[in-house]
Amino acid sequence: MQTIDHIRLSEDENELVILDQTRLPNRQVYLSLRSREEMYRAIKELQVRGAPAIGIFAGFAMYVLARQYPREGFLTRFREDAAYLNSSRPTAVNLSWALRRMTLAAEAGGGDLAALRAECQAILEEDIAMCTAISEHGLGLLKEGDGVLTHCNAGPIATSRYGTAIGPILLAQERGIRIRAYCDETRPLLQGARLTSWELMRAGVDTTLLCDNMAATVMSQGKIQFCFVGCDRVAMNGDAANKIGTYGVAILAKHFGIPFYVLGPTSTIDRSCPTGKDIPVEQRDPEEIRSKWYLEPMAPEGVKCVNPAFDVTDHSLIAGIITEKGICRPPYTESLKALFD
Amino acid sequence: MQTIDHIRLSEDENELVILDQTRLPNRQVYLSLRSREEMYRAIKELQVRGAPAIGIFAGFAMYVLARQYPREGFLTRFREDAAYLNSSRPTAVNLSWALRRMTLAAEAGGGDLAALRAECQAILEEDIAMCTAISEHGLGLLKEGDGVLTHCNAGPIATSRYGTAIGPILLAQERGIRIRAYCDETRPLLQGARLTSWELMRAGVDTTLLCDNMAATVMSQGKIQFCFVGCDRVAMNGDAANKIGTYGVAILAKHFGIPFYVLGPTSTIDRSCPTGKDIPVEQRDPEEIRSKWYLEPMAPEGVKCVNPAFDVTDHSLIAGIITEKGICRPPYTESLKALFD
Repeated sequence: MQTIDHIRLSEDENELVILDQTRLPNRQVYLSLRSREEMYRAIKELQVRGAPAIGIFAGFAMYVLARQYPREGFLTRFREDAAYLNSSRPTAVNLSWALRRMTLAAEAGGGDLAALRAECQAILEEDIAMCTAISEHGLGLLKEGDGVLTHCNAGPIATSRYGTAIGPILLAQERGIRIRAYCDETRPLLQGARLTSWELMRAGVDTTLLCDNMAATVMSQGKIQFCFVGCDRVAMNGDAANKIGTYGVAILAKHFGIPFYVLGPTSTIDRSCPTGKDIPVEQRDPEEIRSKWYLEPMAPEGVKCVNPAFDVTDHSLIAGIITEKGICRPPYTESLKALFD
Repeated sequence: MQTIDHIRLSEDENELVILDQTRLPNRQVYLSLRSREEMYRAIKELQVRGAPAIGIFAGFAMYVLARQYPREGFLTRFREDAAYLNSSRPTAVNLSWALRRMTLAAEAGGGDLAALRAECQAILEEDIAMCTAISEHGLGLLKEGDGVLTHCNAGPIATSRYGTAIGPILLAQERGIRIRAYCDETRPLLQGARLTSWELMRAGVDTTLLCDNMAATVMSQGKIQFCFVGCDRVAMNGDAANKIGTYGVAILAKHFGIPFYVLGPTSTIDRSCPTGKDIPVEQRDPEEIRSKWYLEPMAPEGVKCVNPAFDVTDHSLIAGIITEKGICRPPYTESLKALFD
């Protein structure tokens, strides 16, 4: 597979070059970022998005910024900029995690740029290794000609190479195994239409886009053998939070006897969270449903909307949770716990 | 309830006045139609839509046109214009049915305008009576405070007063019984967002709009006591074709133990159609998913889409089929047959 290189250093390493995800799928625009303000804006305005991708971005960003610091006051500047970038999207765990990691490297190395270069490269390579392992475990389930339905975007541009939920499909494609991919468009933010179908088509995968409400029909026609979705947080009983609409897909899959898998790194499993009831769900602006993307509003002014960003799929609907360490099966209270023993 | 009068005669009866449904919900524009070309375009371009509404429209349209014919060659002109209007949307059964009915009235009356006026009024009043009866039967299921989820649009502007699927809610509102209505936005053509939520809000109903993929979450929260949907065709075993996405709603409702009802006139029950497998489903333009309504396309150029206009809900998921004659219950092979005996 030709990698997208959506987050990379310029040749002279003075700039951070990223693919602007807000311009997809119509334009592939690369941005060269040098100032901390440009980097802040890139996260804030979702030019870079996907929790692991934001972590990788933050690592390289701090390296590029560090190259601009004078010897004197190096660590102070470093900590200031890390705190500044961290305030761009306070809820993305990977952002603060990567910034903390880079700060520790800066402190340990006393401002040695080579150590920082190695640390941000390590963050990237660890993510690639993790995505590759998840993809391998998922691919083990698939055979030539299978149809896989996915929801939202958990592909390479949200992570690193391969991604998580669509990783097995991309890995299959690389090895000449043809999988038919079905992407829910994923209202209201349309990540499936804008991003996932773009990633899959770019890799040459046989890709079909559908509105979220068409999944039942496609499943009933025998076109889907597996559902693969990403996750934002997994509780210790196997309940899994992911993009709104995932829960509905899982119920349909159960109805049609189609195995439904959740794919994500073990870092997504929240050991402090016993069940899905303990996962808070963000409510977003009704205008995302009513007017965003459109030439003019598509619903009456002032209409009341529900707009949860995520839903929580009950563990009873999940055939397996695929991590870099292998596939966890029910009962999850045992198999997830075993990951940490 | 203040009626919408979305299809009516002008005071001098020389024009047909309709609410332009393509401008909703942002603008309430009324069009005055006089020529057959304007009337043809109104149907073709969905300024008037909904099978029963098209039938009512066709009746009044023929009356307005007939007032313009000279005595000589009256019936020839009448038949020509009826054939012309009939070619605007060949698949809408109510259109040809209403035109045939008006033509018979013209032939019987020998060009008597009063007979034509009575006939188009009869088509309207029969539809009002039918919608009212369906609404009464549906209302019998509801109690104060219930939440009802609907999909697509089967309200007054698709029919006549009350509509079918949302008829019970509007009738409840008139009688001071508060029902909470939930409207699926209904991708890709957004009839729920554009039309149903507008109709319900206009009537003062407590209305919440949601993306189709949020129905599972709302159901899991105990907010929905009933699902009420319209239908385009019902097979003799109870399988029901309706707007794409209905089947998924029915599966979710079953999962959560929520009774799912189909509402429509007995004329929607197709006695020549033993099961849902015999109902053909129209496939529509992928651009409806990829680019329609948007400022710019939301999916890659050339992406393959499935875009069925309808799906068929299996009879095993349906708690009852509500017609003007009452509520049919399983087994439908018996209860639907009994309607015609």
